[in-house]
Amino acid sequence: MASTFGNKIKISIFGQSHSTAIGMSLDNIPAGMILDEEKLKAFMERRAPGRSLTSTQRKEGDEPEFLSGFMEDDAGRLVTCGAPISAIIRNEDAKSEDYDELKDMPRPGHADFTAHIKYGGFEDYRSGGHLSGRLTAPLCVAGGIAIQVLEQLGITVSAEIDEIGGKKIGSWDEAEALIEEAKTDGDSIGGIVRCIVKGMHAGIGGPIFDGVENRISQVVFGIPAVKGIEFGAGFQASAMKGSENNDPYTVDDSGNVITETNNAGGILGGISTGGDIVFRVAFKPTPSIAKEQQSISYTDGEIANITVKGRHDPCIVPRAVPVVEAAAALAILDLIL
Amino acid sequence: MASTFGNKIKISIFGQSHSTAIGMSLDNIPAGMILDEEKLKAFMERRAPGRSLTSTQRKEGDEPEFLSGFMEDDAGRLVTCGAPISAIIRNEDAKSEDYDELKDMPRPGHADFTAHIKYGGFEDYRSGGHLSGRLTAPLCVAGGIAIQVLEQLGITVSAEIDEIGGKKIGSWDEAEALIEEAKTDGDSIGGIVRCIVKGMHAGIGGPIFDGVENRISQVVFGIPAVKGIEFGAGFQASAMKGSENNDPYTVDDSGNVITETNNAGGILGGISTGGDIVFRVAFKPTPSIAKEQQSISYTDGEIANITVKGRHDPCIVPRAVPVVEAAAALAILDLIL
Amino acid sequence: MASTFGNKIKISIFGQSHSTAIGMSLDNIPAGMILDEEKLKAFMERRAPGRSLTSTQRKEGDEPEFLSGFMEDDAGRLVTCGAPISAIIRNEDAKSEDYDELKDMPRPGHADFTAHIKYGGFEDYRSGGHLSGRLTAPLCVAGGIAIQVLEQLGITVSAEIDEIGGKKIGSWDEAEALIEEAKTDGDSIGGIVRCIVKGMHAGIGGPIFDGVENRISQVVFGIPAVKGIEFGAGFQASAMKGSENNDPYTVDDSGNVITETNNAGGILGGISTGGDIVFRVAFKPTPSIAKEQQSISYTDGEIANITVKGRHDPCIVPRAVPVVEAAAALAILDLIL
Amino acid sequence: MASTFGNKIKISIFGQSHSTAIGMSLDNIPAGMILDEEKLKAFMERRAPGRSLTSTQRKEGDEPEFLSGFMEDDAGRLVTCGAPISAIIRNEDAKSEDYDELKDMPRPGHADFTAHIKYGGFEDYRSGGHLSGRLTAPLCVAGGIAIQVLEQLGITVSAEIDEIGGKKIGSWDEAEALIEEAKTDGDSIGGIVRCIVKGMHAGIGGPIFDGVENRISQVVFGIPAVKGIEFGAGFQASAMKGSENNDPYTVDDSGNVITETNNAGGILGGISTGGDIVFRVAFKPTPSIAKEQQSISYTDGEIANITVKGRHDPCIVPRAVPVVEAAAALAILDLIL
Repeated sequence: MASTFGNKIKISIFGQSHSTAIGMSLDNIPAGMILDEEKLKAFMERRAPGRSLTSTQRKEGDEPEFLSGFMEDDAGRLVTCGAPISAIIRNEDAKSEDYDELKDMPRPGHADFTAHIKYGGFEDYRSGGHLSGRLTAPLCVAGGIAIQVLEQLGITVSAEIDEIGGKKIGSWDEAEALIEEAKTDGDSIGGIVRCIVKGMHAGIGGPIFDGVENRISQVVFGIPAVKGIEFGAGFQASAMKGSENNDPYTVDDSGNVITETNNAGGILGGISTGGDIVFRVAFKPTPSIAKEQQSISYTDGEIANITVKGRHDPCIVPRAVPVVEAAAALAILDLIL
Repeated sequence: MASTFGNKIKISIFGQSHSTAIGMSLDNIPAGMILDEEKLKAFMERRAPGRSLTSTQRKEGDEPEFLSGFMEDDAGRLVTCGAPISAIIRNEDAKSEDYDELKDMPRPGHADFTAHIKYGGFEDYRSGGHLSGRLTAPLCVAGGIAIQVLEQLGITVSAEIDEIGGKKIGSWDEAEALIEEAKTDGDSIGGIVRCIVKGMHAGIGGPIFDGVENRISQVVFGIPAVKGIEFGAGFQASAMKGSENNDPYTVDDSGNVITETNNAGGILGGISTGGDIVFRVAFKPTPSIAKEQQSISYTDGEIANITVKGRHDPCIVPRAVPVVEAAAALAILDLIL
Repeated sequence: MASTFGNKIKISIFGQSHSTAIGMSLDNIPAGMILDEEKLKAFMERRAPGRSLTSTQRKEGDEPEFLSGFMEDDAGRLVTCGAPISAIIRNEDAKSEDYDELKDMPRPGHADFTAHIKYGGFEDYRSGGHLSGRLTAPLCVAGGIAIQVLEQLGITVSAEIDEIGGKKIGSWDEAEALIEEAKTDGDSIGGIVRCIVKGMHAGIGGPIFDGVENRISQVVFGIPAVKGIEFGAGFQASAMKGSENNDPYTVDDSGNVITETNNAGGILGGISTGGDIVFRVAFKPTPSIAKEQQSISYTDGEIANITVKGRHDPCIVPRAVPVVEAAAALAILDLIL
Repeated sequence: MASTFGNKIKISIFGQSHSTAIGMSLDNIPAGMILDEEKLKAFMERRAPGRSLTSTQRKEGDEPEFLSGFMEDDAGRLVTCGAPISAIIRNEDAKSEDYDELKDMPRPGHADFTAHIKYGGFEDYRSGGHLSGRLTAPLCVAGGIAIQVLEQLGITVSAEIDEIGGKKIGSWDEAEALIEEAKTDGDSIGGIVRCIVKGMHAGIGGPIFDGVENRISQVVFGIPAVKGIEFGAGFQASAMKGSENNDPYTVDDSGNVITETNNAGGILGGISTGGDIVFRVAFKPTPSIAKEQQSISYTDGEIANITVKGRHDPCIVPRAVPVVEAAAALAILDLIL
């Protein structure tokens, strides 16, 4: 439970936004897999801040230091040895003093208040502590490794921005303009990420509580700011007739049974059909905004206004794209091993 | 995994649509709770077929026989004794011969094909086997018990039809008319169920993989035909600005910190805010329709048409309402104990 | 937790000694396996009472009724279909009135008192309730199935009586004489069961908490009256020198690496060596004895004497032999799938 | 599974003997607990090598660096904040070249061969890799924290050497003489550790697979070299009569129900009686010995002799004492939270 996931693989995520380090342990990855470190680095960079003018200014290398789980081969490459893979990322450039106000006043839309109640006032209040979006960095280390394992099994995971602020996005420029606009207003904006898993053969997953949807959603809701998930036609399917929504079976050139359409998102009865796994994830707008907001003071119980300091992403969605891929890859790998 | 769920409680669901019986085992329910059998019966009846002219004609009492987990008190009431509660429902009125055709030809939109692949041709092909909607009966037995435990803790779970076929539903008549129309067309129709959990105090749930959303969605996707879930403003939140979506904090008359709005659906960072837990669940239209559909034959690999026999719900949504309550109650109880 | 076990398979045990029925659900057994019902019946009979003059007189068929998890093939044989296997055994011949005294007075050596505290006085006090040795019947149903799956993988599990009352046992007559003597004294006697798993290939199990020893012991301590377990040379190894205890490697005729001795009991670092898995299990004497014993009354808090009524096994060990096999088979199957 | 344990707490252990670091993540420790760092350091030192002339010469500070899970209070003390606690220990003083021979030849009694098979030749062969006794250092970090949490609940865990080489040990001098003798012979020697948990109230634990014995043994067998465990009278109980072994109930001065003797080791039916939890753990002799041993070469499949280089503990038992305490504390804490 808590920050641990998986039946066959086991991932544990640890760290707080301003603790000494954040990190992860990932167990049961098969031995003998060569880690492509450049590919992992490129994957991590897609999540890193600073990739567009619109993102937070906090500079972070976010390069994981691997502590265990690998042997070096003669070419100096990291090869999994079957032991748990562990990696940490040190928190270096954080100014804790920015967060002193949060000791007494929770930011609306963040988990400050809920953590305050759950942990009885002992929570790490600095920028969300363990509940910070920063914890998606170790999730991406684990997910980036899972993606590489899946690729060797012929499975690819790719996500993209589908909507920003309720608008379908055709290009990065379009997304950027909407985000820039929100930023200029001292506000933030939400969006939707669409993810496709290709190459899944049929028969993966299981009944009732262990279906592909159950497992993917269990991990995806581990990404901060996610408020909804739908598979295939999803909420749209609820407005359809059975004759429209049912995917007719046919046979492809190789004689495989396939579906002509994919309203099911590649999943029937929790089990993969062999079609693409398709799902969409709704992200709420970043809770941190420049505008003044109404909060309360823990100590005097009075309503008070709060202005969230620091510079924050006006839209988390661009950086969330690889995080959704990481989450999907971990869920799929756990089902498939 | 598979048909087992829970960290603190443990629920196992077993049975197939046409096996001797279906049933469940529910472990770790506190000892000393008096089961209100009439209330459970009334709850089960909300799920049973035959509650409107539109539902399937298969007559089933669906009254569980409790095998263990209770002692009788002097008044003859069932009192939990701390042992796993088990209950079975015998399958009596099913005509297996109706399903002979399914041995060779999967029904579109059902899990027939995916089960065929997963179980290597050994699946119970009769009406979906273990993947049948019939398995929601034991889920409701377990959930109905969970609801009674939660009520004693001051927590209520209530769901209702929110949409049918894409239309907001104001009354049962309205829903019935839309369903009747689909039925007349030899078709089926989907819909959305909205669920509210009241009385949850703040601080329940946990970070990352063990949040309230993760846990509820893990169970809710165990209900056949569910294709999406959203919490609070959900997908709508993705179209909002942070200044609109963030719920401002205030203080109620008793001095408790509450939020003025509830776009978060009662959950921030996976942890309850103390507000109502609100979520919506999208159901696809019933896959079984009277219209002829395209499928394939396993034996000759040819495309062929299939007409699903028997009488089926043209809309599963009315009967799904208590099932969503059951799923929510099990998830919440597992978090709260 | 509690009455549920397994990572890959999932077994749930339910029922009380005097509830309507006892039973089990066993999930994730591969589809397509033909159950040999006669073999299972023979296995169950090895556990049943009445197999020697020394055992309890309560007559029980203990034949499981399978409720789900199978399809019948054309020959009428039960074939697993991938759905959870469930089975129940009705409790028919029990005289509950025999146990009225136990409402107020715990039997020494039984779990009556600990259950009384754990369940706050709501425990099923009749003959141990869920903690009764009777619950090993559904364990044997599950284990009997696991044994058949393992046999198809070339793995056999066999246990035997090793000691009774501290004496090495060469024949059943010898065992019976010792048990008869204890019975005549109105007393009971303990013993040791030795179990061997043959055919395990090397490399099964895992590091630290998931080794073969960890998993077997987790299930074996689920058998009532077990107070110790040792693998290979076990406690004896603690008295040995490294040069005696280390098993030298050699090569067999087929070129496989094997060990010349097997002090390790087929396990090094929690992982199988390919040698026989060997372990011994210590059973305490049956707590139910004819002699008067000192107990206390819950209601008046006074010391009082108790005489346990009914006729009980003076030695549980003979009937425990198949139960140990069942436990080992479930642990091994869970590791190996 | 694998290197992860716990239902309520979650501990993940990572690292190899010669990886960059070893470490652990420990989740669900209650917030607000002040860590006594001096006490933890003292606890770790009991496990460290170099505490007697007889132990291995590899110098290691083994002081954990805490990465997360704490906030500092005004006095500079570490206070748990509810986030997962993580800690690492860097591996500094290891000479990897000592282990080159192990690439091709497994040490008898070690897990070299079983890991070689399990990980397909990709195992970290250096000094046992992840299966090394060195991994008990992070187990002790986690266990040392668990001990401090338990102490605040009035529960103490203490272990001691009970036997060395089959002889009851009355004093440290006696133990040291036996160990010294084995060392002089170029050999090693095993022993038994006895552990007592005091202050457990009655009613902790659960039926069948989740009893106190099941849980303790699951963790204790995670300690390398453990080959047996027994609770209370243990194997001795198998030689006793019921009238001897049953612990009579009585009432103490405060009116609490207690047992007059404690052959049950404080556990009946998997549930605590309120008496001391008592168990003994059998350790085999250290597999690394100076004497030449018979092994095989992976590459040529021939029998060959191996001499284990480096200096090793001739007896692991003295250093294992705190490790047993750590294991017990983690199991008990997991049951009690």
